[in-house]
Amino acid sequence: MTVVDNLLTGDLANLARLRDHAAFTFVQQDIIKPLQIEGPVDEIYNLACPASPPRYQIDPIHTFRTCVDGTLNLLTLAEAKGARILQSSTSEVYGDPEINLQHEGYRGNVNTCGPRACYDEGKRAGETLFWEFGAHRGVETRIARIFNTYGPQMHPDDGRVVSNFVVQALRGDALTIYGDGSQTRSFCYVDDMVEGLIRLMASNEKMPVNLGNPGEFTMLELAKLVLAKTGSAVPMTYLPLPQDDPRQRRPDIARARGLLGWQPVVPLDLGLDRTIAWFAERVRADRQKELLPS
Amino acid sequence: MTVVDNLLTGDLANLARLRDHAAFTFVQQDIIKPLQIEGPVDEIYNLACPASPPRYQIDPIHTFRTCVDGTLNLLTLAEAKGARILQSSTSEVYGDPEINLQHEGYRGNVNTCGPRACYDEGKRAGETLFWEFGAHRGVETRIARIFNTYGPQMHPDDGRVVSNFVVQALRGDALTIYGDGSQTRSFCYVDDMVEGLIRLMASNEKMPVNLGNPGEFTMLELAKLVLAKTGSAVPMTYLPLPQDDPRQRRPDIARARGLLGWQPVVPLDLGLDRTIAWFAERVRADRQKELLPS
Repeated sequence: MTVVDNLLTGDLANLARLRDHAAFTFVQQDIIKPLQIEGPVDEIYNLACPASPPRYQIDPIHTFRTCVDGTLNLLTLAEAKGARILQSSTSEVYGDPEINLQHEGYRGNVNTCGPRACYDEGKRAGETLFWEFGAHRGVETRIARIFNTYGPQMHPDDGRVVSNFVVQALRGDALTIYGDGSQTRSFCYVDDMVEGLIRLMASNEKMPVNLGNPGEFTMLELAKLVLAKTGSAVPMTYLPLPQDDPRQRRPDIARARGLLGWQPVVPLDLGLDRTIAWFAERVRADRQKELLPS
Repeated sequence: MTVVDNLLTGDLANLARLRDHAAFTFVQQDIIKPLQIEGPVDEIYNLACPASPPRYQIDPIHTFRTCVDGTLNLLTLAEAKGARILQSSTSEVYGDPEINLQHEGYRGNVNTCGPRACYDEGKRAGETLFWEFGAHRGVETRIARIFNTYGPQMHPDDGRVVSNFVVQALRGDALTIYGDGSQTRSFCYVDDMVEGLIRLMASNEKMPVNLGNPGEFTMLELAKLVLAKTGSAVPMTYLPLPQDDPRQRRPDIARARGLLGWQPVVPLDLGLDRTIAWFAERVRADRQKELLPS
């Protein structure tokens, strides 16, 4: 297995268990540049690109090019190697959806001229490139539309809501609520997501497939759950809702159930416990580092 | 003035009147490659890319890259030169619209995974690049969403409906109707469109502005008008509606009226007369060439 990462948001520590494996290779490279991989390649998972607005908005043109040039480079590699290739597309292709349960036939409500567009339109364009290589160039393409995913090994400053709330609660900081907190998200535990991606890769389906957990929670519900589980009593701070922030987000996973026999099995309750345990350890370790004489 | 064209669908004959001008330069180049232009540049009109489905579907990846890489190259040039730059975006960013009068706030109904996506998503991505360079990099950007445009000097085999009908009627071929001919389009005469583009460039508006003629016609109405005007009695052939073909297309031009003081002044009746006259001359010339001994 070869892992390619520019380490823009990734962390080598997360690969510690893998790096001792004889068949493991790590390449530090940005996929915006064409990849030179020696020998055969049978499967490519394109998981590149920061996915949280504060991260992908740091360098919007780079984000866009990761989604577009990077995807084209990997498709070109897949074509040359005869490899299957899976695209991590996103529920963001639906933008701020006008329907509560988003199915794959819904064409979305994305603002092309706004602060989320570098990611949303980049990902939409990535799907188009995948469709073209799948329909006209004989490449075995797979497109996963990934809804909000969470779990251990997220970056503490990733900027997405689960890690934000958990880290804030554990550090004793106020939880940040954007808007009135009534907007909804659906959270899929990382193990479920990985299982879904592997099954999709093994399938024969070239058209997009939603992967996510249909359980829907408001941000306030999530905040209360995190406070209860961490035993924290920090207050909530309310900030304005960012422009184009989706009001609702909930996957219709009928296609994934039918095509892949897949559905999430880890409830938010259990997934949060595991996530909080991991972050608690991490926050403790960070605190000890701060206490050490430098 | 410098004209850059890869001549994929363009015709040097259309530049005949300009080429004798001392200040005119023609560069045959594909904008997918970065442009090297000597000296100052004050304004850039990005009019590149085939716009009719049969043309842009010949090489979909090239079409996509023209819209994305080409646009990024021109924005980079504009940034380097301190030039204003105008993007010919398109009503295709609205896809198959669910509302009759399409205003700029409508976010569209585009299929990312279909035969029109290489153009539609490429153009959406182009708007995003323009927005980024305008909002975050200080470039004076302008985005025109151009609705169906027609007039003299179109390629006889362009593949869009006005030239198709006119050329078929003049050649004595049956007019091709896709579907039942009840889908609508709005046709803007080229002189009106050029005036709109120039006014938009001169304005201070960075957000998208629709440019088009709100007069709405079904394909059957247009066919009958062309037959009456050409005095042709050819029949109509019905072919299946292509996938994702828009059912309706009609610009809301309130923003263009308010911001630019612009609206079309050439009615379809007059524009068609001029267009038919030009194509009649062209068809006559083509026929004479065929009759010459080779």
